[in-house]
Amino acid sequence: MHVSRTFPAALILAAALAPASADEGMWTFNDFPADRVEKAYGFKPDQRWLDHVRLSSLRLARGCSGAFVSPQGLVQTNHHCARACIRQLSTPARDLSANGFYARELKDELKCPDVEVNQLVDISDVTERMNKATAGKEGAAFAEAKTAGQAAIARECSGGDDTVRCDVVTLYHGGIYNLYKYRRYQDVRLVFAPEEAIAFFGGDPDNFEFPRYDFDVSYLRVYRDGAPLDSSANYLRYAADDAKAGDVTFTSGHPGSTQRLDTVASLEFRRDVTLPRSLFLLSELRGILTEFSTKGPEQTRIARDPLFGSENSLKAFKGQFAALVDPAIIRSRAAAEQAVRAKVDADPALKAEYGAVWDSIRAALDHYRTIRERHVFVEDGAGFRSQLFGHAKNLVRYAAEAGKPDEARLKEFTNANFPIVRQSLLSNAPIYPELEKLTLTFSLTKLREALGPDDPLVKKVLGPKSPTQRAAELVDGSALANADLRKRLLDGGQSAIAASNDPMIALARAIDPDARAVRKDNDDNVDAPMAKYSGQIAQLMFKLYGTSTYPDATFTLRISYGAVVGFQQGGKTIEPMTVIGGVFERATGAEPFNLPHSWIAAQSRLNLQQPFNMVTTNDIIGGNSGSPLVNKAGEVIGLIFDGNRQSLGGGLGYDGTANRAIAVNVGALREALSKVYRAERIVDELTK
Amino acid sequence: MHVSRTFPAALILAAALAPASADEGMWTFNDFPADRVEKAYGFKPDQRWLDHVRLSSLRLARGCSGAFVSPQGLVQTNHHCARACIRQLSTPARDLSANGFYARELKDELKCPDVEVNQLVDISDVTERMNKATAGKEGAAFAEAKTAGQAAIARECSGGDDTVRCDVVTLYHGGIYNLYKYRRYQDVRLVFAPEEAIAFFGGDPDNFEFPRYDFDVSYLRVYRDGAPLDSSANYLRYAADDAKAGDVTFTSGHPGSTQRLDTVASLEFRRDVTLPRSLFLLSELRGILTEFSTKGPEQTRIARDPLFGSENSLKAFKGQFAALVDPAIIRSRAAAEQAVRAKVDADPALKAEYGAVWDSIRAALDHYRTIRERHVFVEDGAGFRSQLFGHAKNLVRYAAEAGKPDEARLKEFTNANFPIVRQSLLSNAPIYPELEKLTLTFSLTKLREALGPDDPLVKKVLGPKSPTQRAAELVDGSALANADLRKRLLDGGQSAIAASNDPMIALARAIDPDARAVRKDNDDNVDAPMAKYSGQIAQLMFKLYGTSTYPDATFTLRISYGAVVGFQQGGKTIEPMTVIGGVFERATGAEPFNLPHSWIAAQSRLNLQQPFNMVTTNDIIGGNSGSPLVNKAGEVIGLIFDGNRQSLGGGLGYDGTANRAIAVNVGALREALSKVYRAERIVDELTK
Repeated sequence: MHVSRTFPAALILAAALAPASADEGMWTFNDFPADRVEKAYGFKPDQRWLDHVRLSSLRLARGCSGAFVSPQGLVQTNHHCARACIRQLSTPARDLSANGFYARELKDELKCPDVEVNQLVDISDVTERMNKATAGKEGAAFAEAKTAGQAAIARECSGGDDTVRCDVVTLYHGGIYNLYKYRRYQDVRLVFAPEEAIAFFGGDPDNFEFPRYDFDVSYLRVYRDGAPLDSSANYLRYAADDAKAGDVTFTSGHPGSTQRLDTVASLEFRRDVTLPRSLFLLSELRGILTEFSTKGPEQTRIARDPLFGSENSLKAFKGQFAALVDPAIIRSRAAAEQAVRAKVDADPALKAEYGAVWDSIRAALDHYRTIRERHVFVEDGAGFRSQLFGHAKNLVRYAAEAGKPDEARLKEFTNANFPIVRQSLLSNAPIYPELEKLTLTFSLTKLREALGPDDPLVKKVLGPKSPTQRAAELVDGSALANADLRKRLLDGGQSAIAASNDPMIALARAIDPDARAVRKDNDDNVDAPMAKYSGQIAQLMFKLYGTSTYPDATFTLRISYGAVVGFQQGGKTIEPMTVIGGVFERATGAEPFNLPHSWIAAQSRLNLQQPFNMVTTNDIIGGNSGSPLVNKAGEVIGLIFDGNRQSLGGGLGYDGTANRAIAVNVGALREALSKVYRAERIVDELTK
Repeated sequence: MHVSRTFPAALILAAALAPASADEGMWTFNDFPADRVEKAYGFKPDQRWLDHVRLSSLRLARGCSGAFVSPQGLVQTNHHCARACIRQLSTPARDLSANGFYARELKDELKCPDVEVNQLVDISDVTERMNKATAGKEGAAFAEAKTAGQAAIARECSGGDDTVRCDVVTLYHGGIYNLYKYRRYQDVRLVFAPEEAIAFFGGDPDNFEFPRYDFDVSYLRVYRDGAPLDSSANYLRYAADDAKAGDVTFTSGHPGSTQRLDTVASLEFRRDVTLPRSLFLLSELRGILTEFSTKGPEQTRIARDPLFGSENSLKAFKGQFAALVDPAIIRSRAAAEQAVRAKVDADPALKAEYGAVWDSIRAALDHYRTIRERHVFVEDGAGFRSQLFGHAKNLVRYAAEAGKPDEARLKEFTNANFPIVRQSLLSNAPIYPELEKLTLTFSLTKLREALGPDDPLVKKVLGPKSPTQRAAELVDGSALANADLRKRLLDGGQSAIAASNDPMIALARAIDPDARAVRKDNDDNVDAPMAKYSGQIAQLMFKLYGTSTYPDATFTLRISYGAVVGFQQGGKTIEPMTVIGGVFERATGAEPFNLPHSWIAAQSRLNLQQPFNMVTTNDIIGGNSGSPLVNKAGEVIGLIFDGNRQSLGGGLGYDGTANRAIAVNVGALREALSKVYRAERIVDELTK
């Protein structure tokens, strides 16, 4: 763990919104520094190039990136981005995670129960309208005006068309508001997935590490009206040749969140409260799931996905935590912030307008400290880890929210946002009672731990029962695993919900007032002031330094530029590419270094010198998984699936000497599809 | 979690070694501020009183406190202090944790496999001798001189008598060295233990909380030459009456460790590295053990003890972490340290002698940061959680160390220290293969996570196997669960160890050079400079401020004074006493609020108004468990078993308005022994 890294230069610059350095930056498509790329790499992407890449890029709405890679709606993403679909389509007898999947013919492609794909077709600025809506407001009034403003803009944009998704995106923490208009696709089918053992070869020990030997790919297909979508206008062709060391590379994807413009108070809160508490919780959950997995093959199968999720988050969060406890990093951020505050204090006009914003942010965080446990456990779901409960909560709330005007609803129930919730509610994805009981028992125990056994809400939830007893009673008693029942309750509205005696519905009804109360407290007294004052800081920065940098990541489309370059680690030079032969050397036969039979059988056919995985200097972060790696010609030269361990602190800043994105080479994609999987239908489609 | 507590006054004072305030202080018996007690409470303990309490007090050498409470060697301590013995004496058919234990006659008392009890008979100062031994030395030379000096002093003190234990105790982080001479007792038998359900009523949710309703007591008896020890010269009688609110109270026990005199660098290291990483590890272990427990009643039984241990540590460490991330606390410590440093910098003589000490400590911690994972996982046992491996390691090392001169040995193998290791090696305590595999698999996984799968040591340990495979092979293949075999290997020396093909012995042999290397690095380059420079800071403080305060806790005997006083929590006044009737109101029938049958059956006989648990302002911390609570007459008025949640930050400082010790009332001890357990033999002995 390289916790002593420092990137003070990058940090101070980012904090001051001055121009980003080197290959740093997760740029928006409407504000891309093409000149800077030209200066560094002798190539200047033009508007057509940018538009083509943007329209070929896709967001997997539940947390990943992807791209169209054929004229028939074929989507390239990571195996780990399609995990939920792969698991949902599996049964004890047909374990697609263990054995992989290949639809030999179009008709064999399997519909994913709840994947939504978004294609960004337009970006426009709505800052003035949003600022007008919230001007002069504070607290609850600010929160209501912001929600109503966003809902109204989104509604106008989509015109009530569910195949259009419109999001008002908050950039620079509120300095700028943009309207992102997407095409929304909910009929998405699984075309190909390798065995998890090669997709995630090396498992948790090799995760976020390089050198690496992973075939972390899956192919999906977007359908419309029951037929493959015509994506011939915009898709990315596979390059004929692999990238070479030094080649310029672009990623187009959806980095989830960064804290490069956060105040010191926010970073300290993250270091002292958010991250460690999340890590304590996830560590324990990982232990629970690990041991549950040993109970039998079916338990192994059904716990695989949540276990992967908790391990992946743990490693990522530990990397973030390591960066935050590096004294040099916080110290340099504090110095940069002090410099800005000194400038403000020295100018009476600036002082009058901005002098109080940092302390106001700290005050909002101080309030959050007092309500965080209740917010996280009661409203945010940490106390009720259960798909059945999640469905119950959405059904109970939708029944109440549907009767309100669109702009007065909780935001996930507005017309613009509800389609993705509805997709989950109507999904036929399997729900496993044993896993439900496991995670619900755990989370009820944690709820009691967080609020104390004498808290009235805890007493309301548990009564005289233990978490184990209560979870069993709730899961065994609920019929909500049945999607038809959920549809009836959804269609039945308030009266159906009121009449239901399903114990999960009853529980969701009982705690809804408590959950809404803490949500409102958070909306009004934490989120609202944070948005208001962070936006003011951004505006101040624009005044002082201009707008020549990029906003923090927000799980919206960004483009980064970089090159294929190795790095130094533990005193050694790490070359930027591995070859396919390396995976056979690393294999031990024991988890997580066991190769699937298909690869062992194909060894003699494979070009063992074919570059397998590679690293680039592209500035990415979680959410970028599945992003295409693109060359100057706008062709796919790889598939981003990870970052190296040094990049885990990337939320705070970018260090071009050490931070690396990790991708599967395009040549390796072709090689294995053809020689390991004989997936000629896909290979043909990719090379058309 | 009351993370916004501040105790700047206490902290700054403690940091400056100025007189402690209010009831603060874990005082040594040879430096007790009797005048201050007189001023506060109108009672001045004299030397006879102090000697009597000291000689009646006991240390349970593996981590607790206790006291003689009868002339026949009867020892009062907590149930949770005798947990290991209770578990070791249990079988699936006779579960003493679940059902409790009462030896109706003397001959029914059961020998604990590995309890050692120490009675402090003499304290003398050896500072000059230790300082002379280490004068002018640095690093390895300092470390060797310190170890050799301690071994020589201890050897002279004990004269080779195993029934005498002599420890050179480092006080004020090296400002003072005292020689503590104990009588050592290893024949200790279980006399009485209640059911765990009442000893630990409320379980983890109520742990470190008040109001409380726990009967956390056990009675042991010290034997010598097969008969009860004659302790008539020094034991504490049970008081006839309960304490009342406001009464002065004393504790005499062994607080484990505090950080009240630590430098800011040490506290930050603890906040950023030690505590969070321990919490991540323990959280996951807790998850593993929790889920393992659900596999069946035998798994529940054998995991109960390690699960309690991990939950108890988790809650304690989380409290410590919450105090350390309270910005006000570190800030006030930094201000106090800055003030001292400014004083030093302003005086050329002081500057020459002490100017560099703080930076030297920070440098030692910076080095530790680079080796900590290896040290913790390879040498300190975090990578090899297995009793079988622990035995193997001690056998392998003792064979090598026994041939060296006493003062050149690793410290746990010196003549003075080896008896307690030998007791463990020859113990007939059961070892559970299933639990061994569970914890060894977990710890090998964590070892690989900490050092990486490509680390040579990790490869040496695992080979091509997974942690699960390797743990199974080691545990199934080892015969070290047999105490006779361990005795033969212990007696057989180097040749027996070299000839053994037990896989645990083989593993311990194989990694011993690696483990010794990182231990030496830590001894020479972390512990040695920390001791040297911390000692210099202490000497500086004595020069600047005198010696009117107490040293940080070191698991050696301390006395604290205080009074029975309630506290404020969540805007409410918490009365200092609960009554027995309260436990029946709090019981739900479900874990951990289920009462054992014995109590339910006895309800009508019990005086429900009898005070049950109480809080006092005594300054205690982990290790004080089992301490007698004593009145002015030197009689037992209670039994310390916990602190309130506010006291969890007590390692950093004492806040008299909020920190409370929690005890079982003497009247409740008598009431339940008599009316619930009909343990008249003990009641008679206690009232003689």
